[in-house]
Amino acid sequence: MSQLIAVIGGDARYLELIRQLQSIPDAGIVLVGFDKLEQGFTGLKQSDFTDLDPADLDIVILPITGCDSQGNVETVFSDHSIQLTGQWFKELKPSVKVFTGIANDFIKSAAKEANISLIPLLNRDDVAIYNSIPTAEGAIMMAIENTDYTIHGSRVIVVGFGRVGNTVANKFSALGAKVSVSANSIKDLARITEMGLTAVPLEELHEATSGCDLLINTVPAPVVNKDSIQQLPSHALIFDLASKPGGTDFAYAKQRGIQAILARSLPGVVAPRTAGKILADVIKQILREDGSLT
Amino acid sequence: MSQLIAVIGGDARYLELIRQLQSIPDAGIVLVGFDKLEQGFTGLKQSDFTDLDPADLDIVILPITGCDSQGNVETVFSDHSIQLTGQWFKELKPSVKVFTGIANDFIKSAAKEANISLIPLLNRDDVAIYNSIPTAEGAIMMAIENTDYTIHGSRVIVVGFGRVGNTVANKFSALGAKVSVSANSIKDLARITEMGLTAVPLEELHEATSGCDLLINTVPAPVVNKDSIQQLPSHALIFDLASKPGGTDFAYAKQRGIQAILARSLPGVVAPRTAGKILADVIKQILREDGSLT
Repeated sequence: MSQLIAVIGGDARYLELIRQLQSIPDAGIVLVGFDKLEQGFTGLKQSDFTDLDPADLDIVILPITGCDSQGNVETVFSDHSIQLTGQWFKELKPSVKVFTGIANDFIKSAAKEANISLIPLLNRDDVAIYNSIPTAEGAIMMAIENTDYTIHGSRVIVVGFGRVGNTVANKFSALGAKVSVSANSIKDLARITEMGLTAVPLEELHEATSGCDLLINTVPAPVVNKDSIQQLPSHALIFDLASKPGGTDFAYAKQRGIQAILARSLPGVVAPRTAGKILADVIKQILREDGSLT
Repeated sequence: MSQLIAVIGGDARYLELIRQLQSIPDAGIVLVGFDKLEQGFTGLKQSDFTDLDPADLDIVILPITGCDSQGNVETVFSDHSIQLTGQWFKELKPSVKVFTGIANDFIKSAAKEANISLIPLLNRDDVAIYNSIPTAEGAIMMAIENTDYTIHGSRVIVVGFGRVGNTVANKFSALGAKVSVSANSIKDLARITEMGLTAVPLEELHEATSGCDLLINTVPAPVVNKDSIQQLPSHALIFDLASKPGGTDFAYAKQRGIQAILARSLPGVVAPRTAGKILADVIKQILREDGSLT
Protein backbone atom coordinates (compact mmCIF):
# COMPACT_ATOMS: atom_id res chain seq x y z
CA MET A 1 0.00 0.00 0.00
CA SER A 2 1.54 3.29 -1.10
CA GLN A 3 1.93 6.01 1.50
CA LEU A 4 2.05 9.73 0.82
CA ILE A 5 4.45 11.61 3.08
CA ALA A 6 4.42 15.42 3.19
CA VAL A 7 7.42 17.21 4.67
CA ILE A 8 6.20 20.71 5.48
CA GLY A 9 9.04 23.11 6.33
CA GLY A 10 12.26 22.36 8.16
CA ASP A 11 15.91 23.32 8.39
CA ALA A 12 19.24 21.75 7.40
CA ARG A 13 18.47 18.66 9.48
CA TYR A 14 15.54 17.91 7.21
CA LEU A 15 17.72 17.54 4.13
CA GLU A 16 19.20 14.37 5.60
CA LEU A 17 15.79 13.37 6.98
CA ILE A 18 14.32 13.62 3.46
CA ARG A 19 17.24 11.72 2.00
CA GLN A 20 16.66 8.92 4.51
CA LEU A 21 12.90 8.80 3.90
CA GLN A 22 13.55 8.09 0.23
CA SER A 23 14.68 4.61 1.20
CA ILE A 24 11.12 3.75 2.30
CA PRO A 25 9.66 1.46 -0.36
CA ASP A 26 6.27 2.38 -1.82
CA ALA A 27 6.25 5.83 -0.27
CA GLY A 28 5.62 9.02 -2.18
CA ILE A 29 7.23 12.13 -0.75
CA VAL A 30 6.10 15.68 -1.38
CA LEU A 31 8.09 18.66 -0.11
CA VAL A 32 6.50 21.95 0.93
CA GLY A 33 8.73 24.89 1.82
CA PHE A 34 11.90 23.71 0.08
CA ASP A 35 11.56 25.71 -3.16
CA LYS A 36 14.89 27.52 -2.66
CA LEU A 37 16.69 24.20 -3.01
CA GLU A 38 17.49 23.15 -6.51
CA GLN A 39 15.03 20.57 -7.77
CA GLY A 40 17.95 18.34 -8.56
CA PHE A 41 18.95 18.21 -4.90
CA THR A 42 16.29 15.70 -4.02
CA GLY A 43 14.56 14.87 -7.29
CA LEU A 44 11.34 14.89 -5.27
CA LYS A 45 8.06 16.57 -5.99
CA GLN A 46 7.73 20.06 -4.56
CA SER A 47 4.35 21.62 -3.89
CA ASP A 48 2.89 24.88 -2.68
CA PHE A 49 1.10 24.51 0.61
CA THR A 50 -2.15 25.70 -0.95
CA ASP A 51 -1.93 23.06 -3.69
CA LEU A 52 -1.64 20.28 -1.14
CA ASP A 53 -4.85 18.41 -0.32
CA PRO A 54 -4.61 17.32 3.33
CA ALA A 55 -7.03 14.46 2.62
CA ASP A 56 -4.35 12.84 0.42
CA LEU A 57 -1.72 12.61 3.12
CA ASP A 58 -0.82 9.54 5.16
CA ILE A 59 2.09 11.06 7.02
CA VAL A 60 2.84 14.73 7.77
CA ILE A 61 6.25 15.82 9.03
CA LEU A 62 6.43 19.30 10.55
CA PRO A 63 9.67 21.11 11.53
CA ILE A 64 11.57 20.55 14.76
CA THR A 65 10.08 23.81 15.99
CA GLY A 66 6.54 22.71 15.03
CA CYS A 67 4.75 26.01 14.51
CA ASP A 68 4.19 29.23 16.42
CA SER A 69 1.07 30.06 18.39
CA GLN A 70 -0.67 31.24 15.20
CA GLY A 71 0.16 28.07 13.29
CA ASN A 72 2.97 29.61 11.23
CA VAL A 73 5.56 27.07 10.13
CA GLU A 74 9.24 28.02 9.86
CA THR A 75 10.59 27.42 6.35
CA VAL A 76 14.33 27.95 6.11
CA PHE A 77 14.44 26.93 2.45
CA SER A 78 11.50 29.01 1.20
CA ASP A 79 10.28 32.59 1.16
CA HIS A 80 6.65 31.48 1.08
CA SER A 81 4.80 31.52 4.37
CA ILE A 82 2.88 28.51 5.54
CA GLN A 83 0.11 28.74 8.11
CA LEU A 84 -1.56 25.69 9.58
CA THR A 85 -5.15 26.06 10.77
CA GLY A 86 -7.50 24.00 12.88
CA GLN A 87 -9.57 23.47 9.73
CA TRP A 88 -6.53 22.08 7.89
CA PHE A 89 -5.99 19.49 10.63
CA LYS A 90 -9.67 18.49 10.37
CA GLU A 91 -9.30 17.82 6.66
CA LEU A 92 -6.53 15.28 7.29
CA LYS A 93 -7.35 11.54 7.12
CA PRO A 94 -8.36 10.04 10.48
CA SER A 95 -5.48 7.57 10.07
CA VAL A 96 -2.87 10.27 9.43
CA LYS A 97 0.24 10.49 11.60
CA VAL A 98 1.58 14.00 12.23
CA PHE A 99 5.20 14.19 13.35
CA THR A 100 6.62 17.37 14.85
CA GLY A 101 9.75 18.19 16.84
CA ILE A 102 8.02 19.93 19.70
CA ALA A 103 4.28 20.46 20.16
CA ASN A 104 2.94 23.76 21.45
CA ASP A 105 -0.61 24.41 22.61
CA PHE A 106 -1.74 25.36 19.09
CA ILE A 107 -0.69 22.04 17.54
CA LYS A 108 -1.85 19.99 20.48
CA SER A 109 -5.33 21.43 20.50
CA ALA A 110 -5.65 21.37 16.69
CA ALA A 111 -4.67 17.69 16.64
CA LYS A 112 -6.96 16.90 19.54
CA GLU A 113 -9.97 18.62 17.97
CA ALA A 114 -9.33 16.86 14.68
CA ASN A 115 -8.86 13.60 16.61
CA ILE A 116 -5.68 12.70 14.78
CA SER A 117 -2.44 11.16 15.98
CA LEU A 118 0.32 13.65 16.88
CA ILE A 119 3.87 12.49 17.66
CA PRO A 120 6.20 15.10 19.19
CA LEU A 121 9.57 13.50 18.44
CA LEU A 122 11.75 15.47 20.85
CA ASN A 123 9.64 14.27 23.80
CA ARG A 124 10.64 10.69 23.11
CA ASP A 125 13.37 9.15 25.25
CA ASP A 126 15.15 7.60 22.29
CA VAL A 127 15.31 10.84 20.30
CA ALA A 128 16.37 12.81 23.37
CA ILE A 129 19.17 10.37 24.15
CA TYR A 130 20.42 10.20 20.55
CA ASN A 131 20.24 14.00 20.34
CA SER A 132 22.21 14.32 23.56
CA ILE A 133 25.29 13.11 21.63
CA PRO A 134 25.53 16.08 19.24
CA THR A 135 24.49 18.31 22.14
CA ALA A 136 27.45 17.09 24.19
CA GLU A 137 29.78 17.46 21.21
CA GLY A 138 28.53 21.02 20.80
CA ALA A 139 29.33 21.70 24.46
CA ILE A 140 32.81 20.23 23.93
CA MET A 141 33.35 22.50 20.94
CA MET A 142 32.23 25.52 22.96
CA ALA A 143 34.54 24.56 25.83
CA ILE A 144 37.57 24.25 23.56
CA GLU A 145 36.75 27.48 21.74
CA ASN A 146 35.96 29.60 24.78
CA THR A 147 38.73 28.70 27.21
CA ASP A 148 42.51 29.06 27.13
CA TYR A 149 43.03 25.75 28.94
CA THR A 150 42.38 22.14 27.96
CA ILE A 151 39.25 20.17 28.85
CA HIS A 152 41.71 17.57 30.10
CA GLY A 153 42.35 18.37 33.76
CA SER A 154 39.72 21.09 33.99
CA ARG A 155 37.11 21.01 36.74
CA VAL A 156 33.64 20.64 35.27
CA ILE A 157 30.32 20.60 37.11
CA VAL A 158 27.33 19.25 35.20
CA VAL A 159 24.02 20.26 36.75
CA GLY A 160 21.34 17.67 36.12
CA PHE A 161 21.62 13.97 35.32
CA GLY A 162 18.83 13.52 32.78
CA ARG A 163 19.24 12.40 29.22
CA VAL A 164 21.54 15.30 28.33
CA GLY A 165 23.38 15.64 31.66
CA ASN A 166 24.35 11.98 31.68
CA THR A 167 25.88 12.15 28.19
CA VAL A 168 27.64 15.46 28.81
CA ALA A 169 29.18 14.12 32.04
CA ASN A 170 30.33 10.97 30.23
CA LYS A 171 31.97 12.79 27.34
CA PHE A 172 33.80 15.39 29.41
CA SER A 173 35.02 12.65 31.72
CA ALA A 174 36.21 10.64 28.71
CA LEU A 175 38.31 13.64 27.66
CA GLY A 176 40.02 13.76 31.05
CA ALA A 177 38.06 16.49 32.82
CA LYS A 178 37.45 16.18 36.56
CA VAL A 179 33.67 15.94 36.45
CA SER A 180 31.18 16.48 39.25
CA VAL A 181 27.47 16.04 38.64
CA SER A 182 24.81 17.75 40.70
CA ALA A 183 21.45 16.00 40.96
CA ASN A 184 18.50 15.56 43.25
CA SER A 185 17.57 11.91 43.44
CA ILE A 186 19.52 9.46 45.56
CA LYS A 187 19.35 7.01 42.66
CA ASP A 188 21.10 9.50 40.36
CA LEU A 189 23.68 10.37 43.02
CA ALA A 190 24.47 6.68 43.42
CA ARG A 191 24.84 6.19 39.66
CA ILE A 192 27.07 9.26 39.38
CA THR A 193 29.33 7.83 42.08
CA GLU A 194 29.36 4.42 40.39
CA MET A 195 30.56 6.12 37.19
CA GLY A 196 33.61 7.39 39.08
CA LEU A 197 32.37 10.99 39.06
CA THR A 198 31.79 13.25 42.04
CA ALA A 199 28.14 13.37 43.13
CA VAL A 200 26.91 16.71 44.47
CA PRO A 201 23.39 16.92 45.94
CA LEU A 202 21.62 19.81 44.22
CA GLU A 203 21.07 21.68 47.49
CA GLU A 204 24.84 21.65 48.06
CA LEU A 205 25.72 22.91 44.58
CA HIS A 206 26.78 26.33 45.90
CA GLU A 207 29.36 24.67 48.16
CA ALA A 208 31.01 22.96 45.17
CA THR A 209 31.31 25.83 42.71
CA SER A 210 34.37 27.57 44.17
CA GLY A 211 36.60 24.97 42.52
CA CYS A 212 34.87 24.96 39.15
CA ASP A 213 36.25 26.03 35.77
CA LEU A 214 33.19 25.18 33.70
CA LEU A 215 29.63 24.81 34.89
CA ILE A 216 27.22 23.14 32.44
CA ASN A 217 23.55 23.34 33.26
CA THR A 218 21.04 20.92 31.74
CA VAL A 219 18.06 21.56 34.05
CA PRO A 220 15.21 23.74 32.71
CA ALA A 221 14.51 25.31 36.10
CA PRO A 222 16.28 28.10 38.04
CA VAL A 223 18.95 25.90 39.64
CA VAL A 224 22.10 27.87 38.85
CA ASN A 225 21.26 30.72 41.17
CA LYS A 226 23.06 33.58 42.91
CA ASP A 227 24.46 31.38 45.65
CA SER A 228 26.14 29.06 43.16
CA ILE A 229 27.35 31.80 40.82
CA GLN A 230 28.74 33.86 43.70
CA GLN A 231 31.25 31.15 44.60
CA LEU A 232 32.55 30.58 41.05
CA PRO A 233 36.13 31.71 40.33
CA SER A 234 36.23 34.80 38.11
CA HIS A 235 37.61 32.88 35.13
CA ALA A 236 34.77 30.33 35.24
CA LEU A 237 32.35 29.86 32.36
CA ILE A 238 28.70 28.82 32.41
CA PHE A 239 27.09 26.93 29.52
CA ASP A 240 23.34 26.53 29.77
CA LEU A 241 22.03 23.72 27.56
CA ALA A 242 18.51 23.65 29.02
CA SER A 243 15.48 24.72 26.99
CA LYS A 244 14.85 28.44 26.81
CA PRO A 245 15.15 30.43 29.10
CA GLY A 246 17.68 28.04 30.66
CA GLY A 247 18.24 27.54 34.36
CA THR A 248 20.88 30.20 35.03
CA ASP A 249 20.54 33.60 36.68
CA PHE A 250 22.09 35.29 33.64
CA ALA A 251 21.61 38.79 35.06
CA TYR A 252 23.59 37.96 38.18
CA ALA A 253 26.32 36.18 36.19
CA LYS A 254 26.69 39.29 34.03
CA GLN A 255 26.84 41.49 37.14
CA ARG A 256 29.67 39.33 38.47
CA GLY A 257 31.45 39.46 35.08
CA ILE A 258 31.13 35.74 34.55
CA GLN A 259 30.49 34.68 30.98
CA ALA A 260 27.30 32.64 30.70
CA ILE A 261 26.18 31.27 27.32
CA LEU A 262 22.70 29.93 26.56
CA ALA A 263 23.34 27.34 23.86
CA ARG A 264 20.33 26.44 21.79
CA SER A 265 19.67 23.64 19.40
CA LEU A 266 23.24 22.34 19.27
CA PRO A 267 22.38 19.18 17.28
CA GLY A 268 21.09 21.28 14.39
CA VAL A 269 24.15 23.52 14.57
CA VAL A 270 27.02 21.06 14.95
CA ALA A 271 25.64 17.92 13.29
CA PRO A 272 22.54 18.56 11.16
CA ARG A 273 23.13 15.39 9.18
CA THR A 274 23.32 13.20 12.26
CA ALA A 275 20.33 15.01 13.77
CA GLY A 276 18.30 14.41 10.60
CA LYS A 277 19.24 10.76 10.56
CA ILE A 278 18.19 10.37 14.19
CA LEU A 279 14.74 11.73 13.34
CA ALA A 280 14.41 9.62 10.19
CA ASP A 281 15.40 6.44 12.00
CA VAL A 282 12.80 7.02 14.71
CA ILE A 283 10.06 7.96 12.23
CA LYS A 284 10.76 4.82 10.21
CA GLN A 285 10.75 2.70 13.34
CA ILE A 286 7.40 4.13 14.49
CA LEU A 287 5.88 3.54 11.05
CA ARG A 288 7.19 -0.03 11.01
CA GLU A 289 5.84 -0.76 14.47
CA ASP A 290 2.31 0.34 13.64
CA GLY A 291 2.31 -1.51 10.32
CA SER A 292 2.33 1.57 8.09
CA LEU A 293 5.55 0.23 6.65
CA THR A 294 6.50 -3.30 5.92
CA MET B 1 71.71 31.62 45.25
CA SER B 2 69.67 34.05 43.21
CA GLN B 3 69.08 33.24 39.56
CA LEU B 4 68.39 35.74 36.79
CA ILE B 5 65.93 34.50 34.18
CA ALA B 6 65.45 36.40 30.91
CA VAL B 7 62.35 35.66 28.85
CA ILE B 8 63.12 36.97 25.37
CA GLY B 9 60.05 37.08 23.11
CA GLY B 10 57.10 34.71 23.03
CA ASP B 11 53.37 34.52 22.41
CA ALA B 12 50.23 34.08 24.53
CA ARG B 13 51.57 30.83 25.98
CA TYR B 14 54.41 32.77 27.56
CA LEU B 15 52.08 34.88 29.70
CA GLU B 16 51.17 31.78 31.70
CA LEU B 17 54.77 30.57 31.55
CA ILE B 18 55.94 33.85 33.08
CA ARG B 19 53.22 33.71 35.72
CA GLN B 20 54.36 30.22 36.69
CA LEU B 21 58.05 31.18 36.80
CA GLN B 22 57.24 33.82 39.40
CA SER B 23 56.69 31.03 41.90
CA ILE B 24 60.39 30.14 41.76
CA PRO B 25 61.97 31.38 45.00
CA ASP B 26 65.06 33.58 44.72
CA ALA B 27 64.70 34.06 40.99
CA GLY B 28 64.76 37.43 39.28
CA ILE B 29 62.83 37.62 36.03
CA VAL B 30 63.42 40.16 33.27
CA LEU B 31 61.14 40.36 30.23
CA VAL B 32 62.33 41.40 26.77
CA GLY B 33 59.76 41.86 24.02
CA PHE B 34 56.69 42.30 26.20
CA ASP B 35 56.49 46.11 26.21
CA LYS B 36 53.00 46.16 24.69
CA LEU B 37 51.66 44.46 27.81
CA GLU B 38 50.72 46.77 30.61
CA GLN B 39 53.43 46.86 33.25
CA GLY B 40 50.80 45.92 35.80
CA PHE B 41 50.09 42.65 34.03
CA THR B 42 53.12 40.98 35.48
CA GLY B 43 54.74 43.53 37.77
CA LEU B 44 58.05 42.30 36.42
CA LYS B 45 61.02 44.24 35.12
CA GLN B 46 60.97 44.88 31.38
CA SER B 47 64.14 45.58 29.45
CA ASP B 48 65.22 46.45 25.94
CA PHE B 49 67.28 43.73 24.36
CA THR B 50 70.23 46.11 23.93
CA ASP B 51 70.16 47.01 27.64
CA LEU B 52 70.44 43.38 28.65
CA ASP B 53 73.95 42.16 29.52
CA PRO B 54 74.12 38.47 28.53
CA ALA B 55 76.85 37.91 31.12
CA ASP B 56 74.28 38.56 33.87
CA LEU B 57 71.90 35.80 32.83
CA ASP B 58 71.58 32.37 34.41
CA ILE B 59 68.61 31.20 32.35
CA VAL B 60 67.43 32.37 28.93
CA ILE B 61 64.00 31.42 27.62
CA LEU B 62 63.45 31.92 23.88
CA PRO B 63 60.08 31.58 22.10
CA ILE B 64 58.52 28.30 20.99
CA THR B 65 59.61 29.17 17.47
CA GLY B 66 63.19 29.90 18.62
CA CYS B 67 64.45 32.31 15.99
CA ASP B 68 64.71 32.43 12.22
CA SER B 69 67.81 31.62 10.21
CA GLN B 70 69.15 35.16 10.78
CA GLY B 71 68.63 35.00 14.55
CA ASN B 72 65.48 37.17 14.57
CA VAL B 73 63.20 36.42 17.50
CA GLU B 74 59.41 36.64 17.14
CA THR B 75 57.91 39.11 19.61
CA VAL B 76 54.13 39.06 19.61
CA PHE B 77 53.90 41.62 22.41
CA SER B 78 56.42 44.16 21.10
CA ASP B 79 57.12 46.22 17.99
CA HIS B 80 60.86 46.22 18.69
CA SER B 81 62.90 43.71 16.74
CA ILE B 82 65.32 41.41 18.50
CA GLN B 83 68.20 39.73 16.73
CA LEU B 84 70.39 37.13 18.39
CA THR B 85 73.97 36.81 17.15
CA GLY B 86 76.73 34.29 17.57
CA GLN B 87 78.61 36.94 19.53
CA TRP B 88 75.67 37.35 21.93
CA PHE B 89 75.69 33.62 22.70
CA LYS B 90 79.46 33.81 23.37
CA GLU B 91 78.93 36.54 25.95
CA LEU B 92 76.59 34.32 27.98
CA LYS B 93 77.91 32.65 31.13
CA PRO B 94 79.38 29.16 30.57
CA SER B 95 76.83 27.83 33.08
CA VAL B 96 73.81 29.44 31.34
CA LYS B 97 70.86 27.31 30.26
CA VAL B 98 69.10 28.41 27.07
CA PHE B 99 65.59 27.07 26.61
CA THR B 100 63.85 27.27 23.24
CA GLY B 101 60.80 25.57 21.74
CA ILE B 102 62.45 24.31 18.61
CA ALA B 103 66.11 24.71 17.62
CA ASN B 104 67.08 25.50 14.03
CA ASP B 105 70.58 25.34 12.60
CA PHE B 106 71.30 28.94 13.58
CA ILE B 107 70.61 28.39 17.28
CA LYS B 108 72.25 25.00 17.36
CA SER B 109 75.51 26.22 15.85
CA ALA B 110 75.54 29.44 17.92
CA ALA B 111 75.08 27.43 21.12
CA LYS B 112 77.67 24.90 20.06
CA GLU B 113 80.28 27.51 19.20
CA ALA B 114 79.66 29.28 22.49
CA ASN B 115 79.79 25.91 24.24
CA ILE B 116 76.63 26.55 26.25
CA SER B 117 73.75 24.31 27.16
CA LEU B 118 70.74 24.47 24.78
CA ILE B 119 67.45 22.74 25.65
CA PRO B 120 64.91 22.48 22.81
CA LEU B 121 61.74 21.84 24.83
CA LEU B 122 59.49 20.52 22.07
CA ASN B 123 61.96 17.71 21.34
CA ARG B 124 61.43 16.31 24.81
CA ASP B 125 59.12 13.32 25.18
CA ASP B 126 57.36 14.76 28.20
CA VAL B 127 56.61 18.10 26.55
CA ALA B 128 55.51 16.40 23.34
CA ILE B 129 53.15 14.09 25.20
CA TYR B 130 51.66 16.86 27.36
CA ASN B 131 51.30 19.03 24.25
CA SER B 132 49.54 16.21 22.43
CA ILE B 133 46.53 16.77 24.71
CA PRO B 134 45.69 20.30 23.51
CA THR B 135 46.64 19.17 19.99
CA ALA B 136 44.04 16.39 20.16
CA GLU B 137 41.46 18.78 21.62
CA GLY B 138 42.16 21.15 18.74
CA ALA B 139 41.56 18.31 16.28
CA ILE B 140 38.29 17.50 18.08
CA MET B 141 37.21 21.14 17.80
CA MET B 142 38.05 21.17 14.10
CA ALA B 143 36.15 17.92 13.54
CA ILE B 144 33.00 19.24 15.24
CA GLU B 145 33.22 22.59 13.45
CA ASN B 146 33.94 21.24 9.97
CA THR B 147 31.52 18.33 9.67
CA ASP B 148 27.74 18.04 9.70
CA TYR B 149 27.83 14.72 11.55
CA THR B 150 28.90 13.75 15.06
CA ILE B 151 32.33 12.43 15.99
CA HIS B 152 30.37 9.65 17.71
CA GLY B 153 29.89 6.92 15.12
CA SER B 154 32.13 8.52 12.51
CA ARG B 155 34.92 6.52 10.91
CA VAL B 156 38.29 8.05 11.73
CA ILE B 157 41.71 6.94 10.51
CA VAL B 158 44.70 8.26 12.44
CA VAL B 159 47.97 7.96 10.51
CA GLY B 160 50.92 7.52 12.84
CA PHE B 161 51.09 6.21 16.38
CA GLY B 162 53.71 8.49 17.89
CA ARG B 163 53.17 10.86 20.77
CA VAL B 164 50.43 12.80 18.98
CA GLY B 165 48.83 9.92 17.07
CA ASN B 166 48.38 7.86 20.22
CA THR B 167 46.59 10.67 22.06
CA VAL B 168 44.43 11.63 19.08
CA ALA B 169 43.35 8.01 18.60
CA ASN B 170 42.52 7.70 22.30
CA LYS B 171 40.43 10.86 22.45
CA PHE B 172 38.41 10.22 19.28
CA SER B 173 37.76 6.68 20.46
CA ALA B 174 36.64 8.01 23.86
CA LEU B 175 34.07 10.15 22.03
CA GLY B 176 32.61 7.12 20.27
CA ALA B 177 34.32 7.34 16.88
CA LYS B 178 35.25 4.11 15.09
CA VAL B 179 39.00 4.60 15.07
CA SER B 180 41.60 2.88 12.91
CA VAL B 181 45.28 3.69 13.31
CA SER B 182 47.82 3.23 10.57
CA ALA B 183 51.41 2.56 11.66
CA ASN B 184 54.55 0.80 10.56
CA SER B 185 56.00 -1.12 13.47
CA ILE B 186 54.58 -4.46 14.55
CA LYS B 187 54.84 -3.27 18.15
CA ASP B 188 52.60 -0.28 17.41
CA LEU B 189 50.13 -2.42 15.45
CA ALA B 190 49.88 -4.79 18.41
CA ARG B 191 49.30 -1.92 20.86
CA ILE B 192 46.65 -0.40 18.59
CA THR B 193 44.84 -3.73 18.53
CA GLU B 194 45.14 -4.10 22.31
CA MET B 195 43.47 -0.69 22.68
CA GLY B 196 40.43 -2.03 20.84
CA LEU B 197 41.16 0.01 17.73
CA THR B 198 41.66 -1.24 14.18
CA ALA B 199 45.32 -1.58 13.21
CA VAL B 200 46.19 -0.79 9.59
CA PRO B 201 49.74 -1.42 8.36
CA LEU B 202 50.96 1.78 6.70
CA GLU B 203 51.50 0.09 3.34
CA GLU B 204 47.82 -0.93 3.35
CA LEU B 205 46.49 2.53 4.22
CA HIS B 206 45.08 3.06 0.71
CA GLU B 207 42.95 -0.07 1.11
CA ALA B 208 41.32 1.31 4.26
CA THR B 209 40.44 4.86 3.20
CA SER B 210 37.30 4.08 1.19
CA GLY B 211 35.34 3.79 4.43
CA CYS B 212 36.76 6.88 6.12
CA ASP B 213 34.99 10.09 7.13
CA LEU B 214 37.98 11.83 8.72
CA LEU B 215 41.65 11.12 8.11
CA ILE B 216 44.07 12.64 10.62
CA ASN B 217 47.74 12.57 9.73
CA THR B 218 50.42 12.94 12.41
CA VAL B 219 53.45 11.75 10.40
CA PRO B 220 55.86 14.43 9.07
CA ALA B 221 56.59 12.49 5.87
CA PRO B 222 54.60 12.05 2.63
CA VAL B 223 52.40 9.19 3.84
CA VAL B 224 48.95 10.45 2.83
CA ASN B 225 49.57 10.10 -0.88
CA LYS B 226 47.52 9.91 -4.05
CA ASP B 227 46.66 6.24 -3.58
CA SER B 228 45.13 6.87 -0.16
CA ILE B 229 43.38 10.11 -1.13
CA GLN B 230 41.94 8.58 -4.29
CA GLN B 231 39.92 6.05 -2.30
CA LEU B 232 38.43 8.55 0.18
CA PRO B 233 34.69 9.24 -0.10
CA SER B 234 33.99 12.71 -1.52
CA HIS B 235 32.65 14.02 1.82
CA ALA B 236 35.82 12.99 3.68
CA LEU B 237 38.06 15.51 5.42
CA ILE B 238 41.82 15.43 6.00
CA PHE B 239 43.44 17.10 9.00
CA ASP B 240 47.22 17.21 8.92
CA LEU B 241 48.73 17.78 12.35
CA ALA B 242 52.32 17.01 11.38
CA SER B 243 55.00 19.71 11.33
CA LYS B 244 55.13 21.88 8.23
CA PRO B 245 54.73 20.95 5.38
CA GLY B 246 52.65 18.04 6.74
CA GLY B 247 52.46 14.58 5.23
CA THR B 248 49.54 15.05 2.83
CA ASP B 249 49.53 15.48 -0.94
CA PHE B 250 47.53 18.71 -0.62
CA ALA B 251 47.63 19.41 -4.36
CA TYR B 252 46.02 16.08 -5.16
CA ALA B 253 43.43 16.44 -2.41
CA LYS B 254 42.47 19.82 -3.86
CA GLN B 255 42.25 18.34 -7.32
CA ARG B 256 39.86 15.68 -6.01
CA GLY B 257 37.82 18.36 -4.18
CA ILE B 258 38.61 16.89 -0.76
CA GLN B 259 39.12 19.44 1.99
CA ALA B 260 42.54 19.06 3.60
CA ILE B 261 43.57 21.33 6.47
CA LEU B 262 47.14 21.78 7.71
CA ALA B 263 46.64 22.61 11.39
CA ARG B 264 49.58 24.32 12.99
CA SER B 265 50.43 24.93 16.61
CA LEU B 266 47.08 23.87 18.03
CA PRO B 267 48.23 24.00 21.70
CA GLY B 268 48.98 27.72 21.37
CA VAL B 269 45.65 28.30 19.62
CA VAL B 270 43.20 26.29 21.72
CA ALA B 271 44.87 26.26 25.13
CA PRO B 272 47.70 28.81 25.50
CA ARG B 273 47.39 28.75 29.28
CA THR B 274 47.75 24.98 29.50
CA ALA B 275 50.56 25.05 26.92
CA GLY B 276 52.40 27.70 28.95
CA LYS B 277 51.99 25.72 32.14
CA ILE B 278 53.36 22.59 30.45
CA LEU B 279 56.52 24.49 29.46
CA ALA B 280 56.91 26.09 32.89
CA ASP B 281 56.50 22.77 34.69
CA VAL B 282 59.19 21.16 32.56
CA ILE B 283 61.58 24.10 32.86
CA LYS B 284 61.17 24.10 36.64
CA GLN B 285 61.72 20.36 36.77
CA ILE B 286 64.90 20.57 34.69
CA LEU B 287 66.23 23.37 36.89
CA ARG B 288 65.39 21.39 40.03
CA GLU B 289 67.11 18.26 38.70
CA ASP B 290 70.37 19.99 37.93
CA GLY B 291 70.39 21.81 41.26
CA SER B 292 69.79 25.32 39.87
CA LEU B 293 66.66 25.40 42.01
CA THR B 294 66.17 24.01 45.42
